[in-house]
Amino acid sequence: MVYDDQNIFARIIRNELPAIKIYEDDHVLAFMDIMPQAEGHTLVIPKSPAITLLDLAPEAAAYTIQIVQKVAKAMEQALEVKGIVLMQLSGAAAGQTVPHVHFHLIPSSIHELGKHALHMGDQEKIKVLAEKIKAAL
Amino acid sequence: MVYDDQNIFARIIRNELPAIKIYEDDHVLAFMDIMPQAEGHTLVIPKSPAITLLDLAPEAAAYTIQIVQKVAKAMEQALEVKGIVLMQLSGAAAGQTVPHVHFHLIPSSIHELGKHALHMGDQEKIKVLAEKIKAAL
Repeated sequence: MVYDDQNIFARIIRNELPAIKIYEDDHVLAFMDIMPQAEGHTLVIPKSPAITLLDLAPEAAAYTIQIVQKVAKAMEQALEVKGIVLMQLSGAAAGQTVPHVHFHLIPSSIHELGKHALHMGDQEKIKVLAEKIKAAL
Repeated sequence: MVYDDQNIFARIIRNELPAIKIYEDDHVLAFMDIMPQAEGHTLVIPKSPAITLLDLAPEAAAYTIQIVQKVAKAMEQALEVKGIVLMQLSGAAAGQTVPHVHFHLIPSSIHELGKHALHMGDQEKIKVLAEKIKAAL
């Protein structure tokens, strides 16, 4: 499969589409999921073009997981969550919808996931959560 | 929370309990989940004592995720799976049951997870899958 540089995360990385960002550096971007499966649902993505975790350069994976840790700690502190589900889906068969590798951080229980219908979250509320997480980074 | 060095994964690392191992080096161990949520369900764990991903040293996380990639690729090749769910649960509230950080690699769809009751898998069948994955590493 060839990487599609018009996928929505590639466009967010290039600032062609808006996102509620909480962290950004030269290699990684973290932003709020606009269809959260739980309050505070964030996404952490490497900027390098890779469809799945299996395609991602090992160095990029190594760096990204450290930002995942950093964001998870900030979520725990800022949102006072007890448990965090890290989820990364490789392949449409696994449930991946955007063809750019992404790590979900969801303050929830695995037993609760998948029960919610996909719907847009309250964007203003999401922005407030984003500010809290950013402040804890 | 203090790390309990009698948890089952710590005991597996010390070879006090058996496991169907597919990969091991000085820092990381990968083995089959004995209560698989799907055929080929594996676990990848750092050997360093950490309860959650948030507690794990960044260098250990960086190394472990690269072994996760390696095992995922071997699973894809050996088991001809189309999609792989990477799942890592931090905290009992998230569904974590063993208090040693572990990454699940599940050849399945996120929409299928959590539907199965927890039960022991067919250990002989799991051993066959393990051999296939090891051969592809």
